[in-house]
Amino acid sequence: MAERDLKVALLGFGTVGSSVARILGDLRPQGLKLTHIYNRNVARKKADWVPADVVWTEKIEDVLDSDVDIVVELVGGLDPACEWVRKVLEAGKSAVTANKKLIAFHGIELEKLARAKGGFLLYGAAVAGGIPVIPGLQQGLAGDQIVRIEGILNGTCNFILSKMEDGAEYATVLKEAQALGYAEADPTEDVDGYDARAKLVILSRLALRSDLDPEGIPCKSIREVAAIDFAYARELGCTIRQISRAEFHPADEDLSAGPPELRDGEVLASVGPMLVRKDSPLAWSRGTENTVLAGGRYGGDVVFSGHGAGGHPTAVAVVSDLINIAHGSRKVELPSRKTAVGGEFLQRHSIRFVVKDRPGIIAEIALALAEQKINIDAIFQKPGYGEAKLPFVVTVDPCVGSALKRALERIAKMDCLLEKAFDLQILD
Amino acid sequence: MAERDLKVALLGFGTVGSSVARILGDLRPQGLKLTHIYNRNVARKKADWVPADVVWTEKIEDVLDSDVDIVVELVGGLDPACEWVRKVLEAGKSAVTANKKLIAFHGIELEKLARAKGGFLLYGAAVAGGIPVIPGLQQGLAGDQIVRIEGILNGTCNFILSKMEDGAEYATVLKEAQALGYAEADPTEDVDGYDARAKLVILSRLALRSDLDPEGIPCKSIREVAAIDFAYARELGCTIRQISRAEFHPADEDLSAGPPELRDGEVLASVGPMLVRKDSPLAWSRGTENTVLAGGRYGGDVVFSGHGAGGHPTAVAVVSDLINIAHGSRKVELPSRKTAVGGEFLQRHSIRFVVKDRPGIIAEIALALAEQKINIDAIFQKPGYGEAKLPFVVTVDPCVGSALKRALERIAKMDCLLEKAFDLQILD
Repeated sequence: MAERDLKVALLGFGTVGSSVARILGDLRPQGLKLTHIYNRNVARKKADWVPADVVWTEKIEDVLDSDVDIVVELVGGLDPACEWVRKVLEAGKSAVTANKKLIAFHGIELEKLARAKGGFLLYGAAVAGGIPVIPGLQQGLAGDQIVRIEGILNGTCNFILSKMEDGAEYATVLKEAQALGYAEADPTEDVDGYDARAKLVILSRLALRSDLDPEGIPCKSIREVAAIDFAYARELGCTIRQISRAEFHPADEDLSAGPPELRDGEVLASVGPMLVRKDSPLAWSRGTENTVLAGGRYGGDVVFSGHGAGGHPTAVAVVSDLINIAHGSRKVELPSRKTAVGGEFLQRHSIRFVVKDRPGIIAEIALALAEQKINIDAIFQKPGYGEAKLPFVVTVDPCVGSALKRALERIAKMDCLLEKAFDLQILD
Repeated sequence: MAERDLKVALLGFGTVGSSVARILGDLRPQGLKLTHIYNRNVARKKADWVPADVVWTEKIEDVLDSDVDIVVELVGGLDPACEWVRKVLEAGKSAVTANKKLIAFHGIELEKLARAKGGFLLYGAAVAGGIPVIPGLQQGLAGDQIVRIEGILNGTCNFILSKMEDGAEYATVLKEAQALGYAEADPTEDVDGYDARAKLVILSRLALRSDLDPEGIPCKSIREVAAIDFAYARELGCTIRQISRAEFHPADEDLSAGPPELRDGEVLASVGPMLVRKDSPLAWSRGTENTVLAGGRYGGDVVFSGHGAGGHPTAVAVVSDLINIAHGSRKVELPSRKTAVGGEFLQRHSIRFVVKDRPGIIAEIALALAEQKINIDAIFQKPGYGEAKLPFVVTVDPCVGSALKRALERIAKMDCLLEKAFDLQILD
């Protein structure tokens, strides 16, 4: 423990910031003292339950030029958050952040800076909120070689998809999520996968020891998932979830060739809606919950699950980071290396077609798939639809996405197709 | 990182010890060097894949008097393990152990010694093997106030009970578990709950910040669970698992009265077979898997799940501890306090009776329960049994165990009872 209390400043006093202040006030963890709160238009934020000696300010310099020891960055985004955190670390102070984008895009540089200047940079809240997956990976699984990460990393998508599992349509649930404050007015970051992608980059660095280019990871939106996809998923013993996944593939397939960070290879990674088996841990998460599965060469699969978002759970991760700093608990920093990203998972797929029915459709689809050496596994057609607009689903044996894409491009030219075919990978 | 490699000695070269050596050889983590292996009759243990410069010995002094930096204790039990670990720590060296009994009974004293002498004492492998629940609680959830722990902490019991769920009888599955090496010739420690109890004591210290007397925690054996109990459990949407649980109950019900370690209260704790809902995370674990659920005041429920036993998963936890020491990563040690243990959970129960049928049995049972103010919820009687030996199940509304015990003592006097009534708590 430090000899005196460390002074803590909060940048941002929204849901998470006020929860952090609340927990610090309730639990009074040893060695920490809240001294500054920065927010725009700070007057409307001031809360009477915050200790009277806390300085409220809307001038960032009041914090950055002060003698605070730890700055908690909760403003989000890259600009100006990155500049502010850099200044804090350059001054030899410590930073705690919940900002996944900042860590995904600038984490390596900022961690180097923190090490050089002697401060801490902790970001337990950046992935899966209140679920301690970062210390779990860094401290607890340091002795394994994690080869695979699969996760439900975005609570908004999980809320939408688990509601759709119960029968609702996408547009309706999105509105509900917006009304409840789970989704932004512009839901792009969440539903198109960019939020989850940033978190996957962080997990890949810690677990696979691989630094991935975030923009190299293919993202597929959940916008096109329809209620009928859940009906067909059920027939396959599955449901649909937004899955973020990354898998290390060594160049020489020789896993025992020494420390993970010295091994050549590529990481297959993707974010998007997938069919997951109902009895898989990834199907357990409902509502805004998150789940992370880490597959280790020695320890097998480890699952972490809980509340991935919301003020209090995220604040727990922030306060935990603060306590770690107060106790001088340095995390284990294992080396990572820049690794190429591939997206070509060899995977079963489920493809939804909507057609104006006529003889020969299946034959043509089968032919287009066969040309790409893709084998049909099964065909599902639910009763109750007319010939004028007939939906059905074809599942295929494991194939890579590029081959399927070529087949679907050819199928897209068929006159009977009323909508673009929609394919989902099946996670086995 | 330390300037030179830290020398590591293994005490015990069984399943876990050899896995530790294997992983150290494969991953070659920076800063660690295996130098000594101690085992009884060491000649029959020597393995040619271990580096040639490792010293093999059956004299413990060769390790304790050497210049090793970290001793990994894998011999188990209290004697002589406790004495050896004490000597290591007294010399200012570090110790890593997988020994739950040692930490449950002597952890506080040994941690104090480690702190005083400047060494590390880490025991990530002592609870839930390869699942990083200890760093998860210590590092990742330090900022929450955990009020409840529920876990499947014994792989042997989980193997037996999940096989019984599929229809097997206890005695048959126990034999299978023994043949597979999952259960000892004398299975007492596992099936009667003492192994899980030691782990629960460790989790209570870390999560609830409460030091419990291990021998004060009531344990109920799984020996009496019968196949028919699973049939009735199914009717209630449940299965049966050995559950270890501990719940903090503050004396004044005022949770916000400051840091957890300063609050008066008692911890309700127990280990034993319970009915758990099929959709609960605690029902997910099959085979030898473990699950730990930590219920936080702020972050809600967090679930950790994975392989709790076996050579490789346990070795992952040991090697992770070694890496933490090599990186000088001090854990967060939050204060705990001696806390009284109670066992009086207010809980629903399911009670199995086996009777020679005659009129009036239900009335007499209902009366005995009513005298203790216990309300019957439902009565289940499966068809296919004759009047001569009729099993049926009564579920009751929440009551404390002592009241139910009094009622069952009175019921035990009924002439029609062919077996002692067997009651299981229902975890809601």
